[in-house]
Formats: sequence, C-alpha cells, structure tokens
Amino acid sequence: MTYEQLIGRHKSEIDTPALLLDMDVAEANIRRMAEFFRGRECKLRPHAKTHKLPRIARRQLEAGAVGITCAKLGEARVFQEAGIGSILIANEIVGVTKIRALVRLMCEGDVTVCVESLENAADLSAAAAEGGVVAPILVEVNVGLNRCGVPPGKPALELVRGISRLPNLRFCGLMGYEGGLFLKNLEEKARRCREANRLLVDTRRLIEGDGFEVQIASAGGSNTFALTGTYPGITDVQVGSYVSMDDHNREYGLDYGQAVTVVATVISRPEPGRAVTDAGMKSLSTDAGLPVCVEPGLTVSALNEEHGHLRVHGREIRAGDKIEIIPRHGCTTIPLFDRYFILRRDHVESVAEIRARGASQ
Amino acid sequence: MTYEQLIGRHKSEIDTPALLLDMDVAEANIRRMAEFFRGRECKLRPHAKTHKLPRIARRQLEAGAVGITCAKLGEARVFQEAGIGSILIANEIVGVTKIRALVRLMCEGDVTVCVESLENAADLSAAAAEGGVVAPILVEVNVGLNRCGVPPGKPALELVRGISRLPNLRFCGLMGYEGGLFLKNLEEKARRCREANRLLVDTRRLIEGDGFEVQIASAGGSNTFALTGTYPGITDVQVGSYVSMDDHNREYGLDYGQAVTVVATVISRPEPGRAVTDAGMKSLSTDAGLPVCVEPGLTVSALNEEHGHLRVHGREIRAGDKIEIIPRHGCTTIPLFDRYFILRRDHVESVAEIRARGASQ
Repeated sequence: MTYEQLIGRHKSEIDTPALLLDMDVAEANIRRMAEFFRGRECKLRPHAKTHKLPRIARRQLEAGAVGITCAKLGEARVFQEAGIGSILIANEIVGVTKIRALVRLMCEGDVTVCVESLENAADLSAAAAEGGVVAPILVEVNVGLNRCGVPPGKPALELVRGISRLPNLRFCGLMGYEGGLFLKNLEEKARRCREANRLLVDTRRLIEGDGFEVQIASAGGSNTFALTGTYPGITDVQVGSYVSMDDHNREYGLDYGQAVTVVATVISRPEPGRAVTDAGMKSLSTDAGLPVCVEPGLTVSALNEEHGHLRVHGREIRAGDKIEIIPRHGCTTIPLFDRYFILRRDHVESVAEIRARGASQ
Repeated sequence: MTYEQLIGRHKSEIDTPALLLDMDVAEANIRRMAEFFRGRECKLRPHAKTHKLPRIARRQLEAGAVGITCAKLGEARVFQEAGIGSILIANEIVGVTKIRALVRLMCEGDVTVCVESLENAADLSAAAAEGGVVAPILVEVNVGLNRCGVPPGKPALELVRGISRLPNLRFCGLMGYEGGLFLKNLEEKARRCREANRLLVDTRRLIEGDGFEVQIASAGGSNTFALTGTYPGITDVQVGSYVSMDDHNREYGLDYGQAVTVVATVISRPEPGRAVTDAGMKSLSTDAGLPVCVEPGLTVSALNEEHGHLRVHGREIRAGDKIEIIPRHGCTTIPLFDRYFILRRDHVESVAEIRARGASQ
C-alpha cells in the first residue's frame, strides 16, 4: 500500500516501525501552552528541533508564537523554505562556509543568530556587509549550563559594546539556556532556574543601563517554561518537547498529552513473559533511557539495533500484534524516521516527510 | 559548494558535522578479513546493517563473500535495487503486509529469510505460493542470546520437519547469533562462543541425521569471527563492523583500521580546558558510550543534542577548527547521516547517499 492509499485508513494498517503523530493531541498541547502565556509579558518562541515539522510550526505561530527556534542552520533552511517567517538559530554559526550560508538565509527572511565572541561577530559582520544585509543577533550568555555563551554581566556588556562598533549587525538582545535543569527536587529546580533567569535579566539591565536596547531575552524550554516564562524580564521561552511529548519530560513533571508514539510489531514470542518487537535502537533512542509501552502489562527491557525486548506481565500478546511505544526522548527519536504518519482519531490524515531530519549542519 | 564541486577537494572543505569514509582503509579491512577466510570451510556473509552502502557490499562480494546479510526487509530492498544478488534477512518477517513485500523481493532475486515458528512459516508458505516462488529459509536457533530463535536441538528439528511439509518453502539451514558476546575476559568469551557454536552445529547434525540437507549454518559477527569462523560446521559468519570500525569494537580487541569518522567544527572555546563542537547526539550515537577524538589531547566529555563537549589537555584549539571523531558505535552512528563523504588520501572521491538509512521496516 502506498502512503497515498493509507490516507483515511486505520492506524493498524501502517507498516512498522513507524512514527505516529496524533494531531488532535498535538494541537491541544499547542493551545494549552498558548493559553498559559496569553496576556503575559513573556511570549513563545517554540523550538522546532523536536518536532522538525513546518506544519506544526505554523500551528504554533497561529496560536501566537513570536517566531520559532532552530538548533542548526540546516534546520532553519528547511523551515524557511517551508515559508516560516521568523527564525532564531539558538546557536553559534562558525566558519566561512556556514556564515555565508547563514547570510543567504538572512537575505531571504527574518533569521536571527547567536554570537558569543567578538571574533565570530566580526566574521558575521564582514559576511553580512558582503551580502548586503544587516544581521540580527543575540548574545548568548552562559547562565550556568556551561555549554556555549559569554559569562553574564560585564563580559556580556563588553561583547555588546564591541558588536555595536561593527557594521551590518543589529544587536537584538540576549539568550540564555537553562532548559536542561531536569531535577526531581522541585524546590532546587525552582531555585536554580530563578538563579539562571536572574543572571540573564541582570545582564539585560546592565546592558540597557549602558544605553543599548534589549528587545529579546530568550530562554527556557518545556521543562522550565512555567518558571522562566513568569520571571520578569524574560521575553520569550523556547519550548520544544511539549508538542510531541516523551516519557522523560513526563517523568520530570510535564503533564501534556502524548502526541508522538512509535508503532512496532511483535515478531517473536519465545517464552512466557518475553516478547521481541521490530523496533530497536534504530527506531527508538536510548540516550535518556528506555522507552515505555502505551498499553499496560508490557515493559521495554532492552533494545538491540533492530529488536526490542519486552517483558510481558499477566496479559496475552502474540507474534503479529502491533503495540505503541512512547519515546523516552522525542528529540532524538523523531529524527530516526523519514516521515510522520499524522493521525486524527486513529486514522491516517496525511503522511509528512521530516525534511529537517539529519539537518545537523 | 555543491557535493559535485567537492569532488577532488581536501576533506577540510567538507561542511560539518559530516560522515567521512576512508575508502582505502575500508578496502584494506575487506581484504584483510577475506584473507583470514581464504581456504577455510567457513565463508563470509557480511552484514550490511553497519555500512548500509551497496558499493561496500560489492567490494565484499568481489573479495569472495557468499552473499550479504541485512537486518530488515527495507534494507534488503535497497541492496537488491542496487544490484546485490544474494541477500540473507537475518530476522523474522511477520505480518501479511511485510510477508507479501518479502515475497516480491524473492520474485526479483535470491533473498533468504529466517523463521522461528511454524505459524510464521505457514504464512510465508501461503504468500510464496500466491507469488509463485519457493521461499528459501533458515531456521533461527536461540544459541544463548535469548532474543529470537527456536531452542536448539529437538525443537529446531521439529520445526524443520513441520516446514518440510509446507509447500513453496526451501529449508536451507540454520542461523544462530552469538556476536553480542562483548567480554573482556577472552577465555570466558571463547568458552561462551564455543558453547553457542556447539549448540548450532549439534542442531545441524541432529537435523542432518533426520535426513535433511543443511547447507547453511550462519552465525557470528565482527566481534567473534575468529572463534566462530574456525568452528567446524559453521558455514559462514555475518561480519559487519570490521569494514567501518568503531571505538567499541576496538575496545573489545578488534584491531582493524578506522575507516569511518565524523568531522565536527569547534564552535565555542569558553574557557581553558573546554571546547564545544557542532556534533552532538544527532550526529554521534551514545548507546554504547561516548565517542573518542582522533587527535590526542581532546576528550569527548558529554554530548547534548547538537553540541559536543570536549576536554582539552595541553594543546591549542580554536573556534573554527575541525576535528575528527571516532564513533563509539558505528551501526547506530552511520544512519544518523544522509550521506558518506568517501575519501582517498584525504580528498573527496565521491559523495554516496545512504539510501538504507532509516530502513527499519
């Protein structure tokens, strides 16, 4: 059966392993998050690295998002080609080849990028001048994650001053990322999140005090949106996983609907209590742990490359049965697939190619 | 620069992250493994799940392999379409949709599949009759890995007897997989490997004693080829990782040349001793641990989705520098990419699409 022929059919007819997206659940998640931010100072700039699908980005923008966020230049290109208007690349773009490609995207539309060093800013300035554009930039501030970013406070101010002397750059504000604060102790999480937010907003005030306008102070993720999104001075949060959801975010307290699952077929029932499926590590990522089954009585006990091991507790299951599995980490599971099967009420509404999969350049 | 324009250029001009394949090293690995098996009873049936590239499969066949192995139907389709003649799908194919697709491949060429149950064999028999082909099958025997497979000995014999009564099936032999024996204690590894081999070969003899011809007793992987490939009665080994190699196989004693690397760019140098690259978990798998840098003085300390964290020991490194990284697990890293940049003496010979990536159905 072709993908075209699958449209309108029940999801049980989809060959496995396959990536399912329940669009009703995804849209409900989009509405719910938008509702949380209605009337607030802070807006949404959803991160597209998780869902990787322009159709979802459009829904997010229709629901009031101020733009979308991408992790990489290649991802931004896919979303721009799909007609998405405002894109923040939440990353440094380094090297002549990539900077020139970035400037080409900036010629085509509203693309903002992060910088953390004057050298990189100078390279970007030169390329922007060559391309005849003014490059919008955010200064990435290290708010404690110790990944990229200039230290908060004076070093950030010094960088902004340096940038202001370079032609063809427009300083738009700051970015700090604290979304990686996956902590079970909610008090500690709130304390550390507030500390990260404070570093970013204090840096914002310092820079504003020096006479610069700071339009954007972007931060956060699905894991911290309720904290970061209500911290005065943060202008937008980069929520990603909330649309599709995964077991890892659920474990850490995010109670949004599970929109994405992987459907697998039981290929072997070698002994009581044990079954094997056709969905292994090439269909379900394991970087945050093992995925979980939707139905009760089934536990994923291990994954090989193309085999999934299930423990079966007090229920029947046979070779040929299809089961749905919730990814442990959606961001790394979704790009293992070439396409989503988009469902409404368990029937295939459409099949969407994930053009941004593998777009890590 | 287009991929076409890159041909003939030095690898330093390749945008990052990218998957590099040093074809001289890969060919040397293919020759070395073929040399080991020259004149032996046991032959090579290399597993294509690792490299996923028909061009390499052709080199392996030219070097004397009796056929190739695939993990999934979708993978087999890609290799058959690329003209590869003899393909073993080392897996059970379950469900009407997949079995019909399998029979279509069998109509086109020499494709063998594994079975472990009479019910699955009956489904295959019916589909083969409908398609007007005789389906070549191996019986998968559980030799201790406890994944798929019928128990060794009498249960396997009973299954062969049952299969022999079904039309349109040709029983060709047995498969047992013990390649997952990654053990540092070489005596224990040899003992457990010999035990797995013995279970398979004893089952072979039992079935032959019942009057059935057993042409194939296929087993092994790169990790056990020297043991399994010299065990009397094993007919071929399914070596995969030896061509491309990875750090995990090297750690467990396989000293073949490193043909595959991921090239990354340093995007941030936030403080002494620390650097950040553009190659994270979406470019380097972590299921077997962290990857390692080719050059001394650099250690991958963590991977985020699109960032790699490096520790820098007593050497210079700057933002913009390119570094090469050895995957920890080639089988799960290679399919994160859409293409190989194939090198000869550090220059791009060609760019090869990895059409079998994501082919997990």
